[in-house]
Amino acid sequence: MRLVPKPPGSSPVRTERSLGDDLAQRFRAVRALTESLCAPLSAEDMVVQSMPDASPAKWHLAHTTWFFETFFLGTGAGAAGGTGEGGPREPGFTLFHPRYGYLFNSYYDAVGPRHARASRGLLTRPLLEEIRAYRAQVDARVAALLARQLDARGKAVLELGLNHEQQHQELLLTDVKHALYSNPLRPAYAPPPAAALRRAPPLGFVAHAGGLHEVGHAGPGFAFDNECPRHRVWLEPFALATRPVTNGEYVAFMEDGGYRRPELWLFDGFAAARANGWEAPLYWERHPSGWTLFTLHGPRPLDLEEPVAHVSLYEADAYARWTGARLPTEEEWEVAAGADDDSADTADGGRFHPAVADTGRARQGVAQLFGDVWEWTRSAYAPYPRFRPAAGALGEYNGKFMCNQFVLRGGSCATPAGHVRGTYRNFFYPEARWQFSGIRLAREA
Amino acid sequence: MRLVPKPPGSSPVRTERSLGDDLAQRFRAVRALTESLCAPLSAEDMVVQSMPDASPAKWHLAHTTWFFETFFLGTGAGAAGGTGEGGPREPGFTLFHPRYGYLFNSYYDAVGPRHARASRGLLTRPLLEEIRAYRAQVDARVAALLARQLDARGKAVLELGLNHEQQHQELLLTDVKHALYSNPLRPAYAPPPAAALRRAPPLGFVAHAGGLHEVGHAGPGFAFDNECPRHRVWLEPFALATRPVTNGEYVAFMEDGGYRRPELWLFDGFAAARANGWEAPLYWERHPSGWTLFTLHGPRPLDLEEPVAHVSLYEADAYARWTGARLPTEEEWEVAAGADDDSADTADGGRFHPAVADTGRARQGVAQLFGDVWEWTRSAYAPYPRFRPAAGALGEYNGKFMCNQFVLRGGSCATPAGHVRGTYRNFFYPEARWQFSGIRLAREA
Amino acid sequence: MRLVPKPPGSSPVRTERSLGDDLAQRFRAVRALTESLCAPLSAEDMVVQSMPDASPAKWHLAHTTWFFETFFLGTGAGAAGGTGEGGPREPGFTLFHPRYGYLFNSYYDAVGPRHARASRGLLTRPLLEEIRAYRAQVDARVAALLARQLDARGKAVLELGLNHEQQHQELLLTDVKHALYSNPLRPAYAPPPAAALRRAPPLGFVAHAGGLHEVGHAGPGFAFDNECPRHRVWLEPFALATRPVTNGEYVAFMEDGGYRRPELWLFDGFAAARANGWEAPLYWERHPSGWTLFTLHGPRPLDLEEPVAHVSLYEADAYARWTGARLPTEEEWEVAAGADDDSADTADGGRFHPAVADTGRARQGVAQLFGDVWEWTRSAYAPYPRFRPAAGALGEYNGKFMCNQFVLRGGSCATPAGHVRGTYRNFFYPEARWQFSGIRLAREA
Amino acid sequence: MRLVPKPPGSSPVRTERSLGDDLAQRFRAVRALTESLCAPLSAEDMVVQSMPDASPAKWHLAHTTWFFETFFLGTGAGAAGGTGEGGPREPGFTLFHPRYGYLFNSYYDAVGPRHARASRGLLTRPLLEEIRAYRAQVDARVAALLARQLDARGKAVLELGLNHEQQHQELLLTDVKHALYSNPLRPAYAPPPAAALRRAPPLGFVAHAGGLHEVGHAGPGFAFDNECPRHRVWLEPFALATRPVTNGEYVAFMEDGGYRRPELWLFDGFAAARANGWEAPLYWERHPSGWTLFTLHGPRPLDLEEPVAHVSLYEADAYARWTGARLPTEEEWEVAAGADDDSADTADGGRFHPAVADTGRARQGVAQLFGDVWEWTRSAYAPYPRFRPAAGALGEYNGKFMCNQFVLRGGSCATPAGHVRGTYRNFFYPEARWQFSGIRLAREA
Repeated sequence: MRLVPKPPGSSPVRTERSLGDDLAQRFRAVRALTESLCAPLSAEDMVVQSMPDASPAKWHLAHTTWFFETFFLGTGAGAAGGTGEGGPREPGFTLFHPRYGYLFNSYYDAVGPRHARASRGLLTRPLLEEIRAYRAQVDARVAALLARQLDARGKAVLELGLNHEQQHQELLLTDVKHALYSNPLRPAYAPPPAAALRRAPPLGFVAHAGGLHEVGHAGPGFAFDNECPRHRVWLEPFALATRPVTNGEYVAFMEDGGYRRPELWLFDGFAAARANGWEAPLYWERHPSGWTLFTLHGPRPLDLEEPVAHVSLYEADAYARWTGARLPTEEEWEVAAGADDDSADTADGGRFHPAVADTGRARQGVAQLFGDVWEWTRSAYAPYPRFRPAAGALGEYNGKFMCNQFVLRGGSCATPAGHVRGTYRNFFYPEARWQFSGIRLAREA
Repeated sequence: MRLVPKPPGSSPVRTERSLGDDLAQRFRAVRALTESLCAPLSAEDMVVQSMPDASPAKWHLAHTTWFFETFFLGTGAGAAGGTGEGGPREPGFTLFHPRYGYLFNSYYDAVGPRHARASRGLLTRPLLEEIRAYRAQVDARVAALLARQLDARGKAVLELGLNHEQQHQELLLTDVKHALYSNPLRPAYAPPPAAALRRAPPLGFVAHAGGLHEVGHAGPGFAFDNECPRHRVWLEPFALATRPVTNGEYVAFMEDGGYRRPELWLFDGFAAARANGWEAPLYWERHPSGWTLFTLHGPRPLDLEEPVAHVSLYEADAYARWTGARLPTEEEWEVAAGADDDSADTADGGRFHPAVADTGRARQGVAQLFGDVWEWTRSAYAPYPRFRPAAGALGEYNGKFMCNQFVLRGGSCATPAGHVRGTYRNFFYPEARWQFSGIRLAREA
Repeated sequence: MRLVPKPPGSSPVRTERSLGDDLAQRFRAVRALTESLCAPLSAEDMVVQSMPDASPAKWHLAHTTWFFETFFLGTGAGAAGGTGEGGPREPGFTLFHPRYGYLFNSYYDAVGPRHARASRGLLTRPLLEEIRAYRAQVDARVAALLARQLDARGKAVLELGLNHEQQHQELLLTDVKHALYSNPLRPAYAPPPAAALRRAPPLGFVAHAGGLHEVGHAGPGFAFDNECPRHRVWLEPFALATRPVTNGEYVAFMEDGGYRRPELWLFDGFAAARANGWEAPLYWERHPSGWTLFTLHGPRPLDLEEPVAHVSLYEADAYARWTGARLPTEEEWEVAAGADDDSADTADGGRFHPAVADTGRARQGVAQLFGDVWEWTRSAYAPYPRFRPAAGALGEYNGKFMCNQFVLRGGSCATPAGHVRGTYRNFFYPEARWQFSGIRLAREA
Repeated sequence: MRLVPKPPGSSPVRTERSLGDDLAQRFRAVRALTESLCAPLSAEDMVVQSMPDASPAKWHLAHTTWFFETFFLGTGAGAAGGTGEGGPREPGFTLFHPRYGYLFNSYYDAVGPRHARASRGLLTRPLLEEIRAYRAQVDARVAALLARQLDARGKAVLELGLNHEQQHQELLLTDVKHALYSNPLRPAYAPPPAAALRRAPPLGFVAHAGGLHEVGHAGPGFAFDNECPRHRVWLEPFALATRPVTNGEYVAFMEDGGYRRPELWLFDGFAAARANGWEAPLYWERHPSGWTLFTLHGPRPLDLEEPVAHVSLYEADAYARWTGARLPTEEEWEVAAGADDDSADTADGGRFHPAVADTGRARQGVAQLFGDVWEWTRSAYAPYPRFRPAAGALGEYNGKFMCNQFVLRGGSCATPAGHVRGTYRNFFYPEARWQFSGIRLAREA
């Protein structure tokens, strides 16, 4: 199943070549996907916030809409919505609701004050139907603007809004998964797909020569500011694993006392494991008959051949140390992925669960770089040399988070099709486990 | 407006005289009231839990049903539901759902393990419609049992279940009020009633002689076990205020620096006030134009004549000390109320907001002992002499909470009609403010 | 060993009959005892604060001195120290150090701001020798005043200061015990006394008739304000245990799963036990060879015949429920103790560890009402009818704590001789365990 | 004042050229310096721990001794102290005290369990004199071993122990500073040095060309494992400030609302500033007459010309953004420092307070790279390519902390002479402020 068809004959990320019609079509498709992701959910499901890191599904619906209203229709200057930079993009711009900016601003200080993140789950109002009306109205207003000529800045902001909404599509899924898991009834989001019984290929390593390389986005096509500018890095020779670590391999680590051996862990990692009582990845439950894994299709017996997912950086790092290997740096990952940028084939966007690696592909090189599980790198999230965030509120998109988090690469089974690329930098705190985060090993060549 | 009509010609609390038909009618009425209280709420409104002390409206609907299923239809022995005391009361008893006991058990350890209280707001499932089906099925099963002959124990458990559900009706309202207030949009639960502009009568005190008195419930009629047994107490002479403290009087305390003067406060109270940043009762908001009060009808300007509500014991105690008076003991309150047990007239059950005291009534004695606001006493909640909790799980109803809480008397504007009486003991932790809790002064005579 | 000899021929608590000389002698004796209690400690031992409830020994030395300086030499009005009530008692009063009031005021808001309680352990300065100089100077100034004629108010304040210092003598010992226990080396405060191997007498109950009684202090002699006024109470018939519960009896409760059976506990108590991981009283440690008890003489094997000590109210209450009995109310305790006020014989003041009950004495009635272990009552600490705290800062001594704590009666092995009496009310939060707090059972007669 | 004289004619870090005598002399000198740093302190001063990050001075004395006992005299294998790798280095090795390993192990899991870090301040025992006896005994045993022939491994471990002790000399000073500041009396550690009134030179930038460089330690001489291996990095052109930011410059940031403008801050930084109430660097206090700075010489008026110290990474980063510059990466810093490695001249080791930059020196290039204040870099602390920690417990020295911390470079006024070098990597969590941490700006060239 693919929820978003690729635009025929063109990459979705080439904004330069997008005509107004193309953008309008993509806008409709992205917005529709968000709503289709909510189809299996009740209004009640969409209210809750199961932890401060997560947001209610209803909030995702509203926030992504607020983003277009604020930054595309308006001026990005908040409730005032009008005076900066020659006025809003939409003629006659008025806010849908005077308080929605307060409720649905995520973290843009330049736009104005906002509702406390940890209290998003208390927003029973606006009701889901009111949020849907908000979406419909903003969609119509955006469509009206797209029917006219857009300047480059307008196109760029719309493109950013689409990519932003795609990021929230993935968060919506992972947040829903966490919320459903928080319910003792362990309800499923969707019926299970047909089982694909297959064995993962043996683990190998592919050597890379190192030397002076370029990483980062150089265009054409859309990229987030944190992927820029493209720049040179020196790499020592290294080798990258041919596929992610499987559940079965991870069980061997656990059975070897992995969670009780401090010498395998970063100091902060072992402290986090003890403080949180970690004894297995998130969503694993020990039953008399063996490990059960909670998935978006409900609980099912652990498939040892699938990639391990929902591990923190700390667990990924400890596992790697246990094997004698290490995690790759983000630059190593990107250089290795350069010859294999087939994200379109691997980010499936509909199964919502990582697949067993494909033996055939892995024989020819690395498998599953894109899709299935995000791959923790050992690289702290930091600005690239000469990085400059955008001016104004949109400059807060990425730059202010470049501290205390780690980079993940490659997308997951919950990433919308066409959203990732070789230069894409995702980032989470090292203790985060609710994303589809897995392990790709590296070692010295 | 009165939501529950009094049964004609009889007090609702006289179980001895209740025939099966009478009980069946009361069962239907109480259950219907709970549902009518939810009528203004959306399914989304009914999911959230705005603080650990509160519960979602949906949870109240389910828990009160679980109470009847477990203790009236079943054996009170939990999921096993059958083997104790000669089997369940309902022939062929089976659980509606095997996991609902886990989800909707509040605190009965003897029944079995339970979902964490602070996580009740994560229960998007069962959906509201499923809870309604649960209620309907249990209602039908209870009705079927009520159509036959009930023994005294069966009648007593049903009576307890009805009183239990009435307590949750009040909690449902106060929990909804807190949840709506937690939303920056400050939505209303119900449209405002017609304003009754009147002035509170001057505050006076009525003297009582003291001496040897009896307090506690001696029947006939229903009472909770914590009201028993009736017993003697020696009281010194005292005087009780003719009405509760008003908002206007409380504002004077605030304007005299009440919240910043430690000498007026209990040590723990001043610490709580500082830790929580209290500067006014809960639901008061300072606006440039003056104080606004959030009510179940939405925000409105503070009416200085109304009884002050939503204060903690600490604030009540500090206010009393500021006036040179004190709070009454629960025994003083009960002895004073003995001659004035007209709860039926004062607990209105539909306005959901305390009324201004009635000048005419207060001239003849004390006003508003029942209804409007619960009145904090200085009495720590403790067992009466020779108190014995019931055997089995129902013994957990009251007894295990007799520590660290304080007694409140008299019911409030959110108490269902017919639920309170002169011997009724409500209890909350001293820092609790989300109930309609107010201040009745006392002093030495 | 007795550290404070009783004044020959007179009770220490009869202030009316005290001449100046007598007071001066008692002042010297009490002050000297405090210092002798510190003799086994190094300066380093006297700095630390092992938990917020405790205070460093050095702080106790300084605070008790500050009390005399502030309330006896000065006016009780803080740093100003002069203008109220016609000036300070000491002619030419000046503060020893301008900042000591800030450092060593415990909780008197009327005197002025103060150092945070939980940070007392950071006060490496003033050095111990500076505190000793402070004590010596204040002692000399008090002695000079005592050499003249004192009015009744002066005598009363001095008497209060002596009783206050005695309370801190006990706290000093219990705080030191906790601090030493917090050290993995488990050092001893003093060498062990000679072992007294004997068996506790069998547990019995002595019946009391109930009826109208008087409790509270009526003079002559010193009492704290919280013991006043004497007043009537009505008691139902009851029976009081002939001795405190022993370690052996408590072990039986533990072995019967006492710490894992919620039905035996107050709700808050079971929550506290789980939150704190309680599985035994404080200072018990499980070793392969059996239970070890940490005492002020270091660790030693648990003596099953000794009274159990260092239990919280919650544990005392759960233990009582397990036996089918209950804790006494404070009024029951006081009425029962009325015929047995021999505190002078039981509070030993030098052994610092509870003794095994004496068989001979217990045959004739109750044993160990005074000394050995404080006995938890089920009574929340509350003001007596018509209680009025003193005016000014000294009114903060007791009154503002009459909330959330429970009354203990009878003194302990760490209480100075002559300090307790039948009307004495000690009070601690229900989870407190670092005092020598034990269990006296009661039941209905 | 210089507390450690440089060994005549040789660098202290050239282990290859050290004879046994040289090592023995250096051992004596380093050990003596630690003790001389404690000379101004009382035993009481040396017990306290003012926050979990800090340690008592007494603990530093013991821990550094434990390090030599465990890793140099013993086998590094903990209490067993004997069986690994062919036995301990010291013939007839026995532990000074069987429990000291538990008390004074800082974080070496491979050595065994340990006392909780946050409870180090409770260790009144062993007494200071016992710790001194421990030091003396271990010193004598080490000296005896040094009198014989040491193999290379023995020399390396001793060298590590000396460098380890030097790190604790700095921590001892910064921990004492924090402890003294925690006392409302604000006592001084040492009398103030003569004031050196001078003005800081104007701020300039020195450009560097970028390109392929080598960083990291390549010998000869001692280095920590985290400085290795030396490796190539590609740098873009950059410029480095000629001196650290001064207090006066930082005041301008504060007066421009720096602490209240989220757009200047990393997201986590602004959250930390709000959560901790930061409005100025640590040790700054606002008085009516202006800012006062707490120093190891007590409080004194803020000197606007001195380098700002005691800022977190977050404040350093926000300050840099406010100026339009940024912090350097650690590689930029090291490359820039390469031509200016005169650490011996700048780390003064006795003044314990950062000095005003020297105008003369700064004209010729950058000033104060070494000494005065540690300089925050924007580089997260991470392993260098091909980094391998040592085998065994000593491998825990640095490697397991390579997460969540940031690198600081250059040493401070509290760093012992001869301890830093151009490749030296210090690291702290980004919110840490109790070190002498300051700001060196960088920008694109």
